[in-house]
Amino acid sequence: MFSQYKPLAVADVPGWDFETDVAVIGFGATGACAAIEARTSGARVMLFERNSGSGGASALSGGEIYIGGGTDAQKAAGFDDTVEDFTAYLKMAGGPCADDAKCELYGREALNHYQWLKDQGVPYRGNYLPGKHIEPTDDSTLIYSGSEQAAPFRYTAKPAPRGHVIQHMGWGGGRPLVDILEARARDLGTEIHIDARAVALIVDGDHVVGVVMRIDNTNRFVKAAKGVVLATGGFVFNEAMRRKYCPDSFRVNSPIGDKDDGVGIELGVSVGGDAIHMDQFFTTCPWTMPESHAYGVFVNVQGQRFINEDCYHGRVSRCAVDQPGGKVYQLLDMAHFEQPMNLAGITIAGTGDTWEEVEAELAMPKGSLSATMALYNEHAREGRDPLFDKQAPILTPLDQAPFVALELNFETSYFSFFTLGGLKTTTDGEVLDRAGQPIAGLYAAGRCTSGLPAWGHGYSSGMSLADCTFFGRQAGRKAAA
Amino acid sequence: MFSQYKPLAVADVPGWDFETDVAVIGFGATGACAAIEARTSGARVMLFERNSGSGGASALSGGEIYIGGGTDAQKAAGFDDTVEDFTAYLKMAGGPCADDAKCELYGREALNHYQWLKDQGVPYRGNYLPGKHIEPTDDSTLIYSGSEQAAPFRYTAKPAPRGHVIQHMGWGGGRPLVDILEARARDLGTEIHIDARAVALIVDGDHVVGVVMRIDNTNRFVKAAKGVVLATGGFVFNEAMRRKYCPDSFRVNSPIGDKDDGVGIELGVSVGGDAIHMDQFFTTCPWTMPESHAYGVFVNVQGQRFINEDCYHGRVSRCAVDQPGGKVYQLLDMAHFEQPMNLAGITIAGTGDTWEEVEAELAMPKGSLSATMALYNEHAREGRDPLFDKQAPILTPLDQAPFVALELNFETSYFSFFTLGGLKTTTDGEVLDRAGQPIAGLYAAGRCTSGLPAWGHGYSSGMSLADCTFFGRQAGRKAAA
Repeated sequence: MFSQYKPLAVADVPGWDFETDVAVIGFGATGACAAIEARTSGARVMLFERNSGSGGASALSGGEIYIGGGTDAQKAAGFDDTVEDFTAYLKMAGGPCADDAKCELYGREALNHYQWLKDQGVPYRGNYLPGKHIEPTDDSTLIYSGSEQAAPFRYTAKPAPRGHVIQHMGWGGGRPLVDILEARARDLGTEIHIDARAVALIVDGDHVVGVVMRIDNTNRFVKAAKGVVLATGGFVFNEAMRRKYCPDSFRVNSPIGDKDDGVGIELGVSVGGDAIHMDQFFTTCPWTMPESHAYGVFVNVQGQRFINEDCYHGRVSRCAVDQPGGKVYQLLDMAHFEQPMNLAGITIAGTGDTWEEVEAELAMPKGSLSATMALYNEHAREGRDPLFDKQAPILTPLDQAPFVALELNFETSYFSFFTLGGLKTTTDGEVLDRAGQPIAGLYAAGRCTSGLPAWGHGYSSGMSLADCTFFGRQAGRKAAA
Repeated sequence: MFSQYKPLAVADVPGWDFETDVAVIGFGATGACAAIEARTSGARVMLFERNSGSGGASALSGGEIYIGGGTDAQKAAGFDDTVEDFTAYLKMAGGPCADDAKCELYGREALNHYQWLKDQGVPYRGNYLPGKHIEPTDDSTLIYSGSEQAAPFRYTAKPAPRGHVIQHMGWGGGRPLVDILEARARDLGTEIHIDARAVALIVDGDHVVGVVMRIDNTNRFVKAAKGVVLATGGFVFNEAMRRKYCPDSFRVNSPIGDKDDGVGIELGVSVGGDAIHMDQFFTTCPWTMPESHAYGVFVNVQGQRFINEDCYHGRVSRCAVDQPGGKVYQLLDMAHFEQPMNLAGITIAGTGDTWEEVEAELAMPKGSLSATMALYNEHAREGRDPLFDKQAPILTPLDQAPFVALELNFETSYFSFFTLGGLKTTTDGEVLDRAGQPIAGLYAAGRCTSGLPAWGHGYSSGMSLADCTFFGRQAGRKAAA
C-alpha cells in the first residue's frame, strides 16, 4: 500500500496512534538539530529513526562543520576571515547549483551557529592545525578543509581555514557530535521512536498533517499538528534512483552513508515537492595520505594534467572522475613518495629513473607524459604554474629520481561518494513545490535537500554538516512556529 | 488558477467543451505521428497546438531521422548495417542515460518505421552523400550523422551512415517533413485546434481523463475518453527550469526550439510522473563548415587536446563545453583553413608561421600547444593517434604554414542547444510514476520525455526526430487502444 510513498488522505486514516506538534523523520545531525530547536520553541516533538539508534551518515563523518566569518579559532591563528569572503566562497563552491539565499543566510549566521553548537555542549579546542589534512590527526579543531587557497577560489574569497572540527582525538568526530546533539534533544524532552520507517505522508487537501510510520511491521499513524520535518539523508544506497537521476555516480564504487535510500526525497515529491540538482554527487579518494602525496601531480590516461592539484582532495577527485579511461595517475618523485595506505586501493602502475621511463611503463606515447612533466617542472622551479595556477608550497618540482605513477582506479580504488541533490527548500526549511510555493506542513533539511553542498566539483569538507546542522535548526524552528 | 499546472479534479469541471477519445498536445512531428496512429486505430482525435500552426522544434530541424539495420539507401551505397550494430550504437549513444528497452525496440523496428514514413508520403531519394555534413547540401537522403566511424563507437558497432533525410533541396527539411505529416493527420480526420495552450490535466482519482486548454483567454475543458498524449517538446526556453534542473546549459547561449517551455514535463509531473536525466542537453557549434575544417585539431585553453575530432560535431562541441576557461581553439593549417561562416561567431584568435608562434599569440606557455601539435603531427604522419584514436582521413598532419587558431567561445559563438531530459515513459509511451507504474490515461513522446537521445555527449543527428516520430506513433497507438 505504501511502497510507492503515495500520500494518504487524512480521511483514510483509521485512527491516530501518535499525536505531536512536530514529527521529525531521521536521527542524524539534521534531525537532532531540528528536534532541539522545535522543543526549544515549545512544541511537542516526536523523532522517528529507522535504525535502532541515532547516527545516520553524520555519525560516519569527521564531525567537521564549515564555519567562517571570523571565529575565535580563526582569529587566534591570525586569519581575519570576513562574512563577505566566507559567503563568496560558499557561493563559488555551489557553482552553477548554488542557492544564493542559503549561502547568504548561513554566511551571516555562521558565527551564531558556532556559538549555538558550543551551547549544546560541542567542545572546540579552538586551535588551528596547519597542513593538508582530511581530518585532524590529533584533537585540533580548525583545519583547511576546502579549496580556499587554490585558484580560482583564492581570487574571489580571501583564504582562511574554515573546517571546524569537534574536539576529539583522531578521526571520527561525527559519532561524538551526534551523541552530544542526541543527549541535548533527549534532555529537552524529545520523544524518540527507533526502528520506525516512514512510508507515507498524510495530507488534508494541500496540507501535510502527519506521517505513516512502519513500526513492528504495523502501520502507525502519526498526527503532526504543526508539521513534518524530513531529515532522512540522500539516496546513495538507492541504485534505481541513482540510475534515473545520477547515472554518472556509477563511475565510482564506494557509497558512504547509512541506509540513505532517498525516502525523504520520495515523500517530498509525493506531495508535489521539487527535487533539484539530482545529478550531483560528492566523491573523494584519500590521495593526500600520506601528507607528502599532496605534492603530487595528476594526469589522465593521455598524460595530461587536468586540475591545479592544490585544490581540496574532493574537487581533484571529482574532476578526476570526469576524465576518460576509468583511471588517473598520481605522479610522485622520491622526495615525496611513501607507500600509500592500503585502505585507498591506490596501486603502483609504473616507475622509472626518468619521466620518459614512467611514460613507457604506462604505455603512453613518447613525448606525452614526459612533456607534461618537463613543462610542469620547468615552471615549478620558477614558482609558477601557468597552465593550472597551482600555488606554493604544493607547487614543487618533481625531479628527484626515481619516479612513480600511482593508479587511482575509479572502480577499484576507494572513491567514496554520496549524493547532493534533493528537495528544494526555503532558507526556513519549507519544502517548495515546482511552482516555488511552500507545501504547508512540510519541512526538510540535510541531504534529502539541495543545500550548501550543491555541486560535486565545489564541495569542501564540513559543508554538508554545516548545512545539516544549521538548516536542520531552521526547519525545526519554522515547523514549531 | 492553472499557473502551477496543478491537476483539476473531474468533479470540479464545470462542463465539457470538447469530447474526444485521444487528446494530443503539441503539433510538431511527435504530435502529428501520435494523431496519425490514433486515427488509424479508429479513435477520435483532437490535436491542440499553442501556436497558430504546426511545426514545433521539428520544423526547425533538418528533417533527418536516425534509421539503421539495413535500409535501401544503406544497401545501395554498399553498407551492410545490421539490427545488432544499429542497436549497439543507439545504446552507446545513450551512455549512462540509455533506455535499453527503447533502443532495442527501435533497433528492431526502424526498418518498418522507415517504410511507414514513406507510406505517409515522406520522399527519400535513397542515395548516400559521402563526406562530413551537418545536413545534405543537395537533395541526397543518407549521410553519416553521428560518431559511427570514430572511437570508441567504431569498436562496438560496425560503422554505417544512418542519417536518413527527407528528399529536399538544401537545408531545412524539417518544415516539409512536418507538412507531410500534418496533411496526413488532417486527411485521416484529426480535429485540429490552434492557439490552444494546455494549462492542467483533469484527473478522476488516479486516472487522467482530460485536459484544460486555454483558448481565447478562456479555459476550455476537454474530455479525453481514452487518453492524453503530451508532445510539447523540451524546456530550453524555460530559464527557471533550466536553472533548477540543467544549470550547465547556461554555459552556452543559443537555445533552439519553438516555445519549448517544459509544459508537458510539468503537466506529467503534476500527476506523479517521473522526470529523469533533466541535466542533459545537446549542443553544437558548426565547426565542420567549411568542410575542410573538419580536419582541424581542438585544444582547450591549456593547449591540450580533449577528444578525437572525427566524432560527430555535437559530441566534440559538448566535450568542448566541458573544458575550463569559457572557450576552446580549433587549429588549422593553410591546407585546410578557409574563412569561417559568419553565422557561427567563430573568430581568429591567433596565427603564426610555426605552432610556437600561434602558442605565443594565444599567450600560452612555451612548450604547451606547440608540444601538443608536435606530438599530434608526428603520429598523424604515421597514420595514428595514440592519445585519442582519431581515424583517417580526418587524421592528417597540420604542418602547412602559416597556421591559425580559431576561437569557439561558449558565450559568443553559435553553440545552439536544446534539453534532453523529460518524462520517463515505457516503449508504448505510457508516462511512468516514480515507482515505475504507468499513470492511467497519460502518454508522452518526443522531447518532453527522455528517449533515444538521452545523453548530450552521445547525441547523433536524427536521433531526436527518430524518437519523436517512432515513439510518437507508439504513444498514439497505445492511447487509442
